[in-house]
Amino acid sequence: MKKFMNEPAAMAAESLAGFAAAHRDAILLGAAGRFVRRRVLTPGKVAIISGGGAGHEPLHVGFVGPGMLDAACPGHMFTSPTPNQIVDAIKDVDQGAGVLLIVKNYDGDVMNFEMAAELAAENGHSIRVVLVADDVSIPKVSGVGRRGLAGTLVVEKIVGAAAEAGWTLDALAELGGRVVAATKTMGVALKGTTLPSASRESNVLGETDMEIGVGIHGEPGGARVSIRPAASIVTQLCERIGAELDPSAGNRMLLFVNGLGGTPLSELYLTYGLACDYWTASGFAVERSLVGSFVTSLDMHGLSITVAILDPQLEQFWDSPVHTTALRW
Amino acid sequence: MKKFMNEPAAMAAESLAGFAAAHRDAILLGAAGRFVRRRVLTPGKVAIISGGGAGHEPLHVGFVGPGMLDAACPGHMFTSPTPNQIVDAIKDVDQGAGVLLIVKNYDGDVMNFEMAAELAAENGHSIRVVLVADDVSIPKVSGVGRRGLAGTLVVEKIVGAAAEAGWTLDALAELGGRVVAATKTMGVALKGTTLPSASRESNVLGETDMEIGVGIHGEPGGARVSIRPAASIVTQLCERIGAELDPSAGNRMLLFVNGLGGTPLSELYLTYGLACDYWTASGFAVERSLVGSFVTSLDMHGLSITVAILDPQLEQFWDSPVHTTALRW
Repeated sequence: MKKFMNEPAAMAAESLAGFAAAHRDAILLGAAGRFVRRRVLTPGKVAIISGGGAGHEPLHVGFVGPGMLDAACPGHMFTSPTPNQIVDAIKDVDQGAGVLLIVKNYDGDVMNFEMAAELAAENGHSIRVVLVADDVSIPKVSGVGRRGLAGTLVVEKIVGAAAEAGWTLDALAELGGRVVAATKTMGVALKGTTLPSASRESNVLGETDMEIGVGIHGEPGGARVSIRPAASIVTQLCERIGAELDPSAGNRMLLFVNGLGGTPLSELYLTYGLACDYWTASGFAVERSLVGSFVTSLDMHGLSITVAILDPQLEQFWDSPVHTTALRW
Repeated sequence: MKKFMNEPAAMAAESLAGFAAAHRDAILLGAAGRFVRRRVLTPGKVAIISGGGAGHEPLHVGFVGPGMLDAACPGHMFTSPTPNQIVDAIKDVDQGAGVLLIVKNYDGDVMNFEMAAELAAENGHSIRVVLVADDVSIPKVSGVGRRGLAGTLVVEKIVGAAAEAGWTLDALAELGGRVVAATKTMGVALKGTTLPSASRESNVLGETDMEIGVGIHGEPGGARVSIRPAASIVTQLCERIGAELDPSAGNRMLLFVNGLGGTPLSELYLTYGLACDYWTASGFAVERSLVGSFVTSLDMHGLSITVAILDPQLEQFWDSPVHTTALRW
């Protein structure tokens, strides 16, 4: 296991310090590095906060900025931020119009963000929570909640744009729910991930294995199978996603191919091309596209395909200007 | 060796097709996929063209767009584009003001771009060439030319901005030379790279080895040594770079930490933070920063540090708007 780091236990904090130094014109690091926030806040706007374990960069710190998040709370590697961290961020960025928390559906995150929401509410902050659960590799009927994956970016982008447009807290929470319902993701990995504190890869995959339905912490997916050509992988992921799409929602889509940290762009674009062909042949119109490593799992060699079905309002908010360190248009 | 691909021999072309599909609103693929160009050209502007082997994405195709390149010619994996490819691109984008070719200093690239320049000149095009050779791991006195590494991005950004501002071909060629002289890079890898057509990693590094001074094709560097903490690696790279900086050029710098394809952003930001501290402690002012995987070597786990000493003009052109698929502000 080799990484560019010093002491493994210090890696998340040192990486965050480097991030803050590189982007000191646009972002601020909260006291004790407990959160990242925009340097300039907008009075009267609903604040949007997200967060979760470190190791998924640029998620969430890279999405702080005009048009997206007001603050992000990174935990230690693959570990939820504490309720106090989140409360500190809420206190710092609430501009009087309330705070929307965007939370990926993992037990630790859900528990800590909900505890923070309660504590903040006791202190007079208006708080709403949007839960992201876009992972279609988990059967709907399993009773296990679906995980939040790369679709989180789509929720943060669209809800962030609506907040910038002056929407109220309740309207943003409702919009967030609509984006979550419209957004489906499925992942695949060729190689597991390695925590800085571990001596070797977790969830090791054999020389010819791949993990279908993998999560962003190297969690096992739906099946471990032999590696196949990209065209076959893409078909399998898209078929599963397609089975989950609401036929009444229309045929205009955002197609987002996301790398998991160790995947070269050439493989992501190749995958995008195949997925675009698949959806076009299936009668969909791929109206918006995003390709890159945005929601990662340290050095994992893997990717996910996200489809979000667009209505005119979602499309307008997707297109709105965004000015963060990782996403900008 | 596992990759998201179909037939290895088709990988570069399939990846390029996916790139063109994802960005069809902004870029066009030339006939037979021989080059990528801006959808809309600017009449009367000097055209800027670059290119080189595929496998370094987003370089160069991701840098096509307003403020940077007019066209890029990708070859096969790690293989130079042919002279005919480059001539086709020149014919397509020359708006009557001439064409500047930005070429990384590798024998194949230099030979094919120079041959293309001659052929195009015979057809009445005004052509100038800028050679990028920013790799300080190669001793100046070795007689071997220095390789073009991540500094290529800096040259393409600054020269592209000046072209947008209406500079003449000769002035751009002179500016390109100045940027090359001001820009120094050194790389390091923890893991070699794997070509799609190869069954295994080339230039295999042992479990505790790293390659200092590595090139962007997995070429061996100055030394293979045991892995050390990031702070020690950063000091070694920066000392070598520092020895090459012109003391009379001032102390304002652009600091660019570039990932080589398989390196997570967390490691790049950690490295950036250490490098920023190093240069600040050495009396430099880190005025501009860039962190990300822009000039890659397929899936290589490695990074490079680039320093460009800025004067007011270079700084102004660095800051000018750029609207490409990989670099945007």
